[in-house]
Amino acid sequence: MKLKNDLILKAAKGQNVERTPVWLMRQAGRILPEYRKIRNSLSGFKELVETPQLAAEVTIQPVDILKVDAAIIFSDILVIPESMGLKYEMIEKKGPFFSKTISNRNDINALNVSNVEDHLSYVFEAIKITKHELSGRVPLIGFAGAPWTILAYMVEGQGSKTFSKAKSFLYREPELAHLLLNKITEITIKYLKLQIKAGADLVQVFDSWAGILSPEYYEEFGLKYLEIICNSINEVPKTIFSKGAFFALEKMNGLNCETIGLDWTMSIKNATQTFNNKTLQGNLDPCVLYGDYNTIEKKTKEMLHKFENYRHIANLGHGVYPDTDPEKVKCFIESVKSYK
Amino acid sequence: MKLKNDLILKAAKGQNVERTPVWLMRQAGRILPEYRKIRNSLSGFKELVETPQLAAEVTIQPVDILKVDAAIIFSDILVIPESMGLKYEMIEKKGPFFSKTISNRNDINALNVSNVEDHLSYVFEAIKITKHELSGRVPLIGFAGAPWTILAYMVEGQGSKTFSKAKSFLYREPELAHLLLNKITEITIKYLKLQIKAGADLVQVFDSWAGILSPEYYEEFGLKYLEIICNSINEVPKTIFSKGAFFALEKMNGLNCETIGLDWTMSIKNATQTFNNKTLQGNLDPCVLYGDYNTIEKKTKEMLHKFENYRHIANLGHGVYPDTDPEKVKCFIESVKSYK
Repeated sequence: MKLKNDLILKAAKGQNVERTPVWLMRQAGRILPEYRKIRNSLSGFKELVETPQLAAEVTIQPVDILKVDAAIIFSDILVIPESMGLKYEMIEKKGPFFSKTISNRNDINALNVSNVEDHLSYVFEAIKITKHELSGRVPLIGFAGAPWTILAYMVEGQGSKTFSKAKSFLYREPELAHLLLNKITEITIKYLKLQIKAGADLVQVFDSWAGILSPEYYEEFGLKYLEIICNSINEVPKTIFSKGAFFALEKMNGLNCETIGLDWTMSIKNATQTFNNKTLQGNLDPCVLYGDYNTIEKKTKEMLHKFENYRHIANLGHGVYPDTDPEKVKCFIESVKSYK
Repeated sequence: MKLKNDLILKAAKGQNVERTPVWLMRQAGRILPEYRKIRNSLSGFKELVETPQLAAEVTIQPVDILKVDAAIIFSDILVIPESMGLKYEMIEKKGPFFSKTISNRNDINALNVSNVEDHLSYVFEAIKITKHELSGRVPLIGFAGAPWTILAYMVEGQGSKTFSKAKSFLYREPELAHLLLNKITEITIKYLKLQIKAGADLVQVFDSWAGILSPEYYEEFGLKYLEIICNSINEVPKTIFSKGAFFALEKMNGLNCETIGLDWTMSIKNATQTFNNKTLQGNLDPCVLYGDYNTIEKKTKEMLHKFENYRHIANLGHGVYPDTDPEKVKCFIESVKSYK
C-alpha cells in the first residue's frame, strides 16, 4: 500500500521534504491514558507485548492522538534474549529481571538462535495488523536492541546504574563476550529481516548502554556488531541510536546506515560537522517537556534552527519520560510541524 | 608540617615529578574490610561521617593499606544541604533520601547559609585529626559537591537515573534555580575555605550529575557557578570533576583551577589536545579492576602511555566500585608506581 505520509522515509534517504518529520521514542505506551486503560486491563506489560491485536492498537494510538509522522511497533528489546532462552519478567516500577543469566561458555552454548520466526511470531503478527490498520497513513518503524545492550542485560540480569557485572564480563572474558555478541548479532539480523518482511518500513537499533563503555571497548564490543547488522540489512533505511556514545560519533559516520540518533547532550553543531551523507535524529532534552508551552515551543524551534539545512528527523534525545503530560507532547509536535 | 610526599601537589601545579601520583575516588570507605569493621560497629554511614576520630581513621586507612599518594577526607557532599536545613538519611543499598525538598521560593528563602563553621564542625575536626595523624606522609584532599549536583539532590530528594524532577525545575523555574544555586555556591565557598583552614592541602569539587544536562544548560546552571567557586578559592590547588560533561571540556579549559578530572568515556587524546596549562586526573574505567592482574597492569600502563608528556594525576574515571577486590586496587596503584 502506498504511504500517504512518507516524510520520515524521505528524510532518512536525504530527499527533499516540505517540513521536518517528527516522532518520539517510547511514544507507544507510557504517557497516554488510552494506553494505560488497555495496559491496566491486562496481567502486565508482557501480555500486551505478546497480544498482537492489542500491541497494534497501542502502536497506532500516538498516530491518532499525537499526530506523529511515524508509528513504532509496541514491543521490547528483551524479546530477543527471551527467544534465545532467557525468560524475563517486567517488574512494575523496577524494570526487567532475568532469573537465568549468562556467566560462562556453557550458558552461551545453550542459547538458541533458530526459530525466531516462531518464537517471536507475535511481533510479526502485530506488525501485520498495524500495517493493515494504519492503511498507509504513516510509516511503521521496527526495532531491536544493539548486541552490546542485549549482552548487558543477559549478563547483568537486570537494569543497573553502572552495569558493572556486564562490563566486567568484557574485561574478564573478552573471547566469550565476542562469542555471545556474534550469537546476538546473528539472531538480531534475522529478527529485523522478519520485521521488514512483515511490513516495517524502517528499522532502528537501540544501543541504550553504549555510553558506559570506554571508547576503545565500544569500538571492539559495540560498533563492530552494529557494522555487521548495518551491512546485512539493505531492504529499508536503518537508524542507529547509541545513547551516550559521543566518543564514537566520528566512527559512526562510517556505518552503512541512513540515520544516526543523537541524545540531548550531543552538540548539534558538532554533529552536523562530524557527519556527512547521514540524517540526524533527535535531540531535545526530554525534560524540556516539563516546561510550560512557551518554553517547549521556544526550545523546539531553537533545536530546529540548529539543524537547518541539514537532513533531520525531529525527536527527543531519549524516550519520552513516563510522567510527561500528553498535551506537552502535542505542543512539541505542533512546534515542529509549524516551524518555518 | 612539611609533606614527605607532595607528588600530587607538584603534579597539580605542573611542576616536575619523578613519577605520576595516584589515588582513587572513594578510596576511603567502601572496599576495605578494615573500613567495614568500623562501619559495622556503628548505627550507620552518617554516624561515621559525624564522628571525627573515626572519620579520620578511615581516611588514613587507604594511605596505610593501599599506599596511595593522597588521602581524601571521609565525608559526603550532602552535608551541605543538611547544613542548609535539609536533613538527609543514608539508606543502606539505596542511597540518600531527603524527607524535605525544594520546590518553591519559600523553600529557598528558608535555607540557611550561615554558621557552616558550627554546623559542619565535625568535618573540620576530622581534617585536623587526620592531618595530625598523617604527620605529613601525604597531602589531604578536601571536597564539596558542585552547586548543580547539590541542587539536583535538594530538588529530587534522592538519587535518580534521570534526575527529571531536578531538571524540570531548571526548565520551569530558571530564576529560582539561579537563586538556589547562588545560595549553594556561597555556602560551598565558605565550606571549602574552612576545610583549607583546617588543613586540606588541595580541594576537589564533584559535579557528579553534570552529564545529564544539555550543553547550554550546563553552561548556564553548572559551569557558571564552578567559575565563581574557582575564582574565590586561591589558597590551594583546585580540581574540578564534571562527570559526563564531555561537551563542556573546551569551556572548562577557561576555569581558574589547576586540575580537571576525566571520566573513562573521555578520550585522553582529545583531552590532552583540548586543555593547556591544566593537569588532567583520571581516567581508567573502574570496571578494569574486575579484570585479572595482567589486564589491570596492561590497561593501566596503556592509560599512562597516553598521558605521557602531559601533566597527569592517575585515578579511575569514577569512584572505585564497592565490590572491587582491594588486591586489585593495589595492583592498579603498583602499576602506576612502577611505570617507566
